[in-house]
Amino acid sequence: MQTPLFMNVGTAAAIKGAVSTEDLKELGCQVQLSNTYHLHVRPGDEVVKKLGGLHKFMVWDRPILTDSGGFQVFSLASLRKIKEEGVYFNSHVDGRKIFMGPEQSMQIQSNLGSTIAMAFDECPSSLAQKDYVRASVDRTTRWLIRCRDELLRLNSLEDTVNPKQLLFGINQGAIYPDIRIEHAKTISELDLPGYAIGGLAVGEPNEVMYDILDRTVPYLPQDKPTYLMGVGTPRDILESVSRGVDVFDCVYPSRNGRHGHLYTHHGTVRLLNARYELDDRPIEEGCDCPCCRTYSRAYVRHLLKAKEMLGMRLCVMHNLYFYNTFMKEIRDALDDGRFESFKRDVLSAMEADNEK
Amino acid sequence: MQTPLFMNVGTAAAIKGAVSTEDLKELGCQVQLSNTYHLHVRPGDEVVKKLGGLHKFMVWDRPILTDSGGFQVFSLASLRKIKEEGVYFNSHVDGRKIFMGPEQSMQIQSNLGSTIAMAFDECPSSLAQKDYVRASVDRTTRWLIRCRDELLRLNSLEDTVNPKQLLFGINQGAIYPDIRIEHAKTISELDLPGYAIGGLAVGEPNEVMYDILDRTVPYLPQDKPTYLMGVGTPRDILESVSRGVDVFDCVYPSRNGRHGHLYTHHGTVRLLNARYELDDRPIEEGCDCPCCRTYSRAYVRHLLKAKEMLGMRLCVMHNLYFYNTFMKEIRDALDDGRFESFKRDVLSAMEADNEK
Repeated sequence: MQTPLFMNVGTAAAIKGAVSTEDLKELGCQVQLSNTYHLHVRPGDEVVKKLGGLHKFMVWDRPILTDSGGFQVFSLASLRKIKEEGVYFNSHVDGRKIFMGPEQSMQIQSNLGSTIAMAFDECPSSLAQKDYVRASVDRTTRWLIRCRDELLRLNSLEDTVNPKQLLFGINQGAIYPDIRIEHAKTISELDLPGYAIGGLAVGEPNEVMYDILDRTVPYLPQDKPTYLMGVGTPRDILESVSRGVDVFDCVYPSRNGRHGHLYTHHGTVRLLNARYELDDRPIEEGCDCPCCRTYSRAYVRHLLKAKEMLGMRLCVMHNLYFYNTFMKEIRDALDDGRFESFKRDVLSAMEADNEK
Repeated sequence: MQTPLFMNVGTAAAIKGAVSTEDLKELGCQVQLSNTYHLHVRPGDEVVKKLGGLHKFMVWDRPILTDSGGFQVFSLASLRKIKEEGVYFNSHVDGRKIFMGPEQSMQIQSNLGSTIAMAFDECPSSLAQKDYVRASVDRTTRWLIRCRDELLRLNSLEDTVNPKQLLFGINQGAIYPDIRIEHAKTISELDLPGYAIGGLAVGEPNEVMYDILDRTVPYLPQDKPTYLMGVGTPRDILESVSRGVDVFDCVYPSRNGRHGHLYTHHGTVRLLNARYELDDRPIEEGCDCPCCRTYSRAYVRHLLKAKEMLGMRLCVMHNLYFYNTFMKEIRDALDDGRFESFKRDVLSAMEADNEK
């Protein structure tokens, strides 16, 4: 993997917007992210294991990262109850009672056979009281140790899909720098192959997020990848790379694409705007994505208005291509030692916004 | 165009199921069919004309056939009133009053700039009384002459998108052979570049349709393409080719594909069936379509169950590839003088049905 990189989010073993793994290669995707909770519910991780694991199932020979399922448990499930052993909750699909703890999350991710498994953690609200956050983070640390031990055991089993599955730990602590720093130090001692920062970009102001990164990243291992979960906009990515983040994921390019909100180097194009009705230019001049190479703004706009799936597919492909290409531009700028000027130029071009 | 051929239906200038014109080339599509009424409503035929016509708009350099809009007027619109001059009806989108007659249909199709324009006709119900059908068919003949004259005028205008636009006439007559035959003789005298048979496959038994074809096709010009509108299943296509039909169109492959109903040379695969949950074979062994080349039944089934658009796209692509390939197999069998044995073999293999 070449970092900094952006992972393309395929929740249910597919990128929303009719984008296939073959398409992802053409779009320059290095790592696919899939969601453990969704795949556990459907088709079921046992089914995926019987079919040889997620790589074989979705036909993808590059790295896959699976989340722990925790975020979905906390955001989708109702009537959840957090205990030392894990979380009891009702399925958002059929209401049945489910228990998920560190061991269950590792077992599911082991069945999926991803390249990188994420630790099972609690992601407390950025508005949570400090006492609650401290107790939650301490439990997340104990859960991390249980995740590590369980994955070690699973990787040694004979019928394991991917015996070399890696575990990334997750730093939490809401917006309390002292808790974040202490937790970063503690989990760094476990010497895991990579670390993530969770619980940011969940509603707090951007400047608060940047401040937390400024203070926390230095306490995570410098020689291992640092992954900022769920981030973000091109601006957030640039600011986070400045602060030492290597890996990102976000649903923005696919979700916004499906709504005709398109990223370009000159700001956003909101394709449903009437001004594009007769616009025969590509979404971004000079873009080499499968959409811009062939189709016009007017045509893609018509497809979106007519609710043709093809419109969403073309827009999602443009946005993913934009993000993956943007990361390559960042890597090139870093290699050439001109990242800060690159960042300044990009931000000012994007803020000019070609729709104004 | 190599006949017999199957036209792939792109109602609103796109194949439903996120399939692009680039994809269509890979799927072996020779002719795209687009719907005049839908494009008149959205984005508007004037918009398409300003953008250089349908070929340029959707980036497709092979033939396009547009229907007349008549079928949609008769099937979608409410409160319609048929007069000698044309049809008054209320838009199915916003209820506003619209008039469409032969001249309007030709003007819209001229704005779209398709390769082949279809005549504006009435398609009477297969259950209509004979007196009604006779009067309707006579009016359709008068409308055809008005279509021909209007297209001649439009093709001679300076700013016409496609000055070589062709007109196909349409044979009607419900299930009355004498009306069908008389009408076929009358419209053949107009010496148009091609003729269609309309008003079949609208609910009447298959054997009735075959009987009408047996009696009517001999009275249409043998040296010009005969197009059977809206047909159909692989069996209907084989039976119709036997009876001299050259051109087909049908929404079955795309619509059925979106519902996981897949065509193979060994019968249909209904992919939502639980038996395919762990099936790692392609939809059809040996099929070279973009779906079967890479993905398994189990994976595509999961995508459909999870309502991922990608599942629909892959299924539609398989079905269109199947239809286009099937037509090539028919052409090869005709070239080799072994069509009847080919037809027998195909029908018996399909009836064996691999799901039984």
